[in-house]
Amino acid sequence: MKKLLLISSSSTHGTSFLEHAQHAIQDHLQGVKTVTFVPFALANREAYSRLAEKAFRSFGFGMQSLHQTEDPKAMVAEAEAIFTGGGNTFRLLKTLCDYQLVDPLRQRVLAGMPYMGSSAGTNITCPTIRTTNDMPIVEPPSFTALDLIPFQINPHYLDANPDSTHQGESRATRLSEYLEENETPVLGIREGCWLKINGDGGEVAGSNGAVLFRRDQPALEMKSGDSLEQLFLSKR
Amino acid sequence: MKKLLLISSSSTHGTSFLEHAQHAIQDHLQGVKTVTFVPFALANREAYSRLAEKAFRSFGFGMQSLHQTEDPKAMVAEAEAIFTGGGNTFRLLKTLCDYQLVDPLRQRVLAGMPYMGSSAGTNITCPTIRTTNDMPIVEPPSFTALDLIPFQINPHYLDANPDSTHQGESRATRLSEYLEENETPVLGIREGCWLKINGDGGEVAGSNGAVLFRRDQPALEMKSGDSLEQLFLSKR
Repeated sequence: MKKLLLISSSSTHGTSFLEHAQHAIQDHLQGVKTVTFVPFALANREAYSRLAEKAFRSFGFGMQSLHQTEDPKAMVAEAEAIFTGGGNTFRLLKTLCDYQLVDPLRQRVLAGMPYMGSSAGTNITCPTIRTTNDMPIVEPPSFTALDLIPFQINPHYLDANPDSTHQGESRATRLSEYLEENETPVLGIREGCWLKINGDGGEVAGSNGAVLFRRDQPALEMKSGDSLEQLFLSKR
Repeated sequence: MKKLLLISSSSTHGTSFLEHAQHAIQDHLQGVKTVTFVPFALANREAYSRLAEKAFRSFGFGMQSLHQTEDPKAMVAEAEAIFTGGGNTFRLLKTLCDYQLVDPLRQRVLAGMPYMGSSAGTNITCPTIRTTNDMPIVEPPSFTALDLIPFQINPHYLDANPDSTHQGESRATRLSEYLEENETPVLGIREGCWLKINGDGGEVAGSNGAVLFRRDQPALEMKSGDSLEQLFLSKR
């Protein structure tokens, strides 16, 4: 049974790397000794894996990183659990494609290996990366992602600032433009929020909540504890 | 000789559509009777072309829109001048590709037809769309754009807000990540700013200025009247 912990952002204002989600992570990774880290969303993989390793050690887990092996496919095949860190979603997906890791990762998660991601690591679990906030700094072969859940996520979801004088699109406007072109619903998850997915269901967790956007329907506010069942039903 | 007017945003705080750039537009389009509008960055092409037509009429120009013809290639071939409006850059580029208009447009501009763009309409004149702020809501066949200038532009450029508690990347961070992966320089142009390109040169104009980002070099503030010559030299 699929088991995913999908975090909006690796930190919240004033907290250290993953600190705000520590208890959810410990719960999600119960029984796991060593977590396998996917560092590809940032350019400096070594520094990134050290940062992640420090956090996971403090939570009681060992860590190895995919950039430390000559054979990342083998490391994925043997991983007890995967954590994919945030950064640039285009770079992350392109690197996974370059290393031919998309399908191996997907198959392991479908077979029940616990997966956790934050930000870009959350984006890539969706059907596509079409709801990322990131700049398209590199060109992956396609926007198709791991497709582990039947809906899209927009991490770092941000409510419009009524005092802003900036003319760029608000996040809600961007997501409504996404829905002009696509039917798959999008859940905007605020910083502090995460989703717990178990099989074909799950719930909103953490703090600050989420907003569900669907075509031709008003935006729906969701809070910690709310079920994601309707989002799984819609694709069956 | 190429002649482009590349505007950061179609409006600034408190101004109507293109009002802030009216004099630059009238100067750029001297001698032009009817401007051809490219409305493809927004979903509602009819409403968008009405908005643009109203502004251009008040500036003293007629307007026709590419969505009003069965043969957009012929309309591009006969256009006196082109204006491409803002919206979503991925949607704009994909539509131009679907209609096979990228090369015809490019050839007309290289041959001297005046071009103006705002926001997404500015993004597509760059070598690629890799420095757009937009969400990748649709998938164009490639990120390669009209390649009319030898550098990238980031429209709606926004300085980091030191009071922000949001953990998403600042614009400067996003552009530094672009430069980790690409060597082409990027000019971030603030709302209110535009670039005037004439042949293989040009200058910063309008208000609020721009910031030049180059790999391994400190960011360089540029102001109205500053020459863009160095950006053209670097590619020769």
